[in-house]
Amino acid sequence: MKQMSGPESRQSEFSSISPSEFFYRNRQMAGFGNPTQATYSTVRELVENSLDSCEDAGRLPLVTVTIESTTSNQVIISVEDNGSGLPYDEVPSAFGQVLYGSKYGLRQKRGTFGLGVTMAVLYGQITTDSPVIIHTQSNNRGREYSLYVDIENNYPVVELTRDRLRSENGTTVTVRIDGDLSRAAARIEEYLRLSSIATPHARLVLRIDNEPILDVGPWAEALPPLPVATKPHPRAADTELLRRTMAGRDALSLKEYLVESFQQVGRKTASEFIDFLGQNPRRKVGELSREEISRISTVMKSYDQFNRPDSSSLSPINRRAFLSAVAGLYELDYSFYASRGPLEWEGHPFIIEGIIASSKAFSKGDEPNLYRFANRVPLLYDASDDVLTKTLKRVSWSRYGIPGGQPWALFVSFCSTRVPYQAAGKQSISNLVQIESAALALYRELGRGASKITKKRQRSRRSERRMREMEASLRLIARFSADLADADAQRAEQLATELLWSDGP
Amino acid sequence: MKQMSGPESRQSEFSSISPSEFFYRNRQMAGFGNPTQATYSTVRELVENSLDSCEDAGRLPLVTVTIESTTSNQVIISVEDNGSGLPYDEVPSAFGQVLYGSKYGLRQKRGTFGLGVTMAVLYGQITTDSPVIIHTQSNNRGREYSLYVDIENNYPVVELTRDRLRSENGTTVTVRIDGDLSRAAARIEEYLRLSSIATPHARLVLRIDNEPILDVGPWAEALPPLPVATKPHPRAADTELLRRTMAGRDALSLKEYLVESFQQVGRKTASEFIDFLGQNPRRKVGELSREEISRISTVMKSYDQFNRPDSSSLSPINRRAFLSAVAGLYELDYSFYASRGPLEWEGHPFIIEGIIASSKAFSKGDEPNLYRFANRVPLLYDASDDVLTKTLKRVSWSRYGIPGGQPWALFVSFCSTRVPYQAAGKQSISNLVQIESAALALYRELGRGASKITKKRQRSRRSERRMREMEASLRLIARFSADLADADAQRAEQLATELLWSDGP
Repeated sequence: MKQMSGPESRQSEFSSISPSEFFYRNRQMAGFGNPTQATYSTVRELVENSLDSCEDAGRLPLVTVTIESTTSNQVIISVEDNGSGLPYDEVPSAFGQVLYGSKYGLRQKRGTFGLGVTMAVLYGQITTDSPVIIHTQSNNRGREYSLYVDIENNYPVVELTRDRLRSENGTTVTVRIDGDLSRAAARIEEYLRLSSIATPHARLVLRIDNEPILDVGPWAEALPPLPVATKPHPRAADTELLRRTMAGRDALSLKEYLVESFQQVGRKTASEFIDFLGQNPRRKVGELSREEISRISTVMKSYDQFNRPDSSSLSPINRRAFLSAVAGLYELDYSFYASRGPLEWEGHPFIIEGIIASSKAFSKGDEPNLYRFANRVPLLYDASDDVLTKTLKRVSWSRYGIPGGQPWALFVSFCSTRVPYQAAGKQSISNLVQIESAALALYRELGRGASKITKKRQRSRRSERRMREMEASLRLIARFSADLADADAQRAEQLATELLWSDGP
Repeated sequence: MKQMSGPESRQSEFSSISPSEFFYRNRQMAGFGNPTQATYSTVRELVENSLDSCEDAGRLPLVTVTIESTTSNQVIISVEDNGSGLPYDEVPSAFGQVLYGSKYGLRQKRGTFGLGVTMAVLYGQITTDSPVIIHTQSNNRGREYSLYVDIENNYPVVELTRDRLRSENGTTVTVRIDGDLSRAAARIEEYLRLSSIATPHARLVLRIDNEPILDVGPWAEALPPLPVATKPHPRAADTELLRRTMAGRDALSLKEYLVESFQQVGRKTASEFIDFLGQNPRRKVGELSREEISRISTVMKSYDQFNRPDSSSLSPINRRAFLSAVAGLYELDYSFYASRGPLEWEGHPFIIEGIIASSKAFSKGDEPNLYRFANRVPLLYDASDDVLTKTLKRVSWSRYGIPGGQPWALFVSFCSTRVPYQAAGKQSISNLVQIESAALALYRELGRGASKITKKRQRSRRSERRMREMEASLRLIARFSADLADADAQRAEQLATELLWSDGP
């Protein structure tokens, strides 16, 4: 049969665009839709980058955000950290190329790979035509870069580079963007304040137009252990992952492959799983058909005999640091911590932890104010869609004997190697049944905790009142007795009080 | 000075990822975060693709969505259109490569370039390991493709291709995904119903598990004119745009360049602008420094002597089609249409149009139910953040004498060469002052329109009541007179009625 040729293109031509071109056209997707958003997002992306970099270098982060407004609706945002500096070779691509970034492997992390910081650079460039300035120093060798993004080709264009020393190792990134500081300032401040709870070992400083606005933390003296990159859990294995991990391993047996590629799969588990699958353990990986790989993935996802995923890839805030941070930021009446996990959703480990606290700083309500965090990042938007918010409505706080209308708050932190965000903005967590039930259990434990504290206080207030009544009677009796005995009445009264309030013999 | 070498990379390695890898990892950004979202987004992306393709081909769209559920939480979604088919050469990349698509130039369009459809393919592939099946036919030559995405390299892998005829020209795309039909079905139905308002010239059909669910439209017999791709407006020119339009035009004078590259810039306007800029009109484009280009952009954005941007690049729904669609879908008590524009935001033309309508089909309320559209796409989420919703709260409907608590609705459609979406999800329009004031004016005109209709009805009800009273008296008089005159009383009464209700002599 004769090969037919395709019909010619009519109205439309086809073409491909670079990732930077895509995000230049769709900047709202990355949080850079307008000057207010862009001001906030720039601070956020640079701060998260700095925190990651300091932690990777094993330093307690000191991150300073400096914002200067200009007369022309432009703002200059500069974020300085005390990390270990960046490898010079990587600076141009890390800041001037979209979808280029530092690899983390499979462990908890803050940002979206290769997007955030370059978006700030790109936005600055298209709105103010200014390059990003990066000054980085390690081992007392410093260098400054000024660079642009070639948007059509997604490639960094270094305008200038020069050696320059600064007093300490670390990195400072400066961008100039069309911004709206008056609208974004309050959000930025709240973001930093809450970040200081999520990362209690960091000190965060904010200066706007040479005024000190904020200087919070550190609330913990030690760096938490760096989360460890792990192998994937078999229940998280889609066919794409299977094919990738099989690539170049054609000669391995199915059993060897499983043991090598996944966590929680030892030789015994692998044998049992292959048996369940009805496969031959000695079958070579290279011989598996597409259909067989697909079937392995389907069975893996539902096989419940694998142990729960390893949680060393997670970095929860933890009781002590979390409590210190909340107590450091608010004058607390009481606080109580609880946590749930490590648990699992579809092969991804997660931990959820929270604090219930009362302070005059919080607004009053029948439900506590909810502050949400995911992987040490505060979530400030889309609260109503979040599983943490929805689950909160299922708790009847009055049952815990907690008086309604008090000024109280919940700080709830979710961490996972993969956060199941609800929507594009990455501001709300999806309504998965595993997370919902963990949150509910957490809230109830926090409720019981707060209830105990409240009741204990009521009890001690009641017993103190009873003691005071008794004291009055005792002093009266002492006075009468002293009078009758012609003794010093005042001294007798005082003795009676001392007797009553003393800690016993 | 000796060249310093960069410090070695420590904890982290750097790398770049492909756009398909990025969206594989961040699928929630494109609306594919979970099975429910993915089911809805797949239908939406395929339908919008089909509508665009039919309109480009100059055909009244007939788009049929067929969904089949399986026993294993998988759904098979198939969307068929009667467009002119796709050029064979382009099929693999259009479906198997992220950030590849058909170019539109600067005119109103529905989708996001090169993302939506490939995301559905990618999601199907990673959740069910099934390829996308594309069957396309033009000029009675048909071909079927089955293909995957090579996610790591962002490249299509064609598994199978064969010639196959079908009865009509057009394209059918079929994907198999992990879905949640029970949760998504109602949303899909609402989406299609509202799409039928936004595109009144289309017929949209939905079948689920062989049951006919919906068959709506067309409500208009003619295709609206295709929006025309235009040159950019000078007030929309950021430095990136200037540099791109200058590329390869080094020898042009500044004046020639401006006239050639922008709309609303004739020779006279160009001269005046260059004069205002303080530049030499004969200056060669190739001689301009980065600073000068930057200054041109800044001055252009604020120069108010350019005419408003051309609106032939827009495709509003328009009065007749819009009214027919709403009347076709709901049994209306009354309806009234108004529009505002063409207007402009930062160099981008926009039109905003709306219908106020009353029908028992709507829920009752003191404020009308609001249905929002942007570029002929219904917006179903994030209503509360939208400028159209916020502006609605500023209208006091009671002032227009419209009785509260009635069952009424507003359908408001915004179109522009660029919709200023608020956030990543593309579901709400930003609070720009130009759009806000246009929306407010529109709402007030709709309020006055509804008020007139309501009052006229009240008036006619009142005058009818008065006529009825008069009729009764007249018939009484006629009867008495007839009795007195010994005439036929019944006939006299009838004559009196006829006299009163006749349309005059």
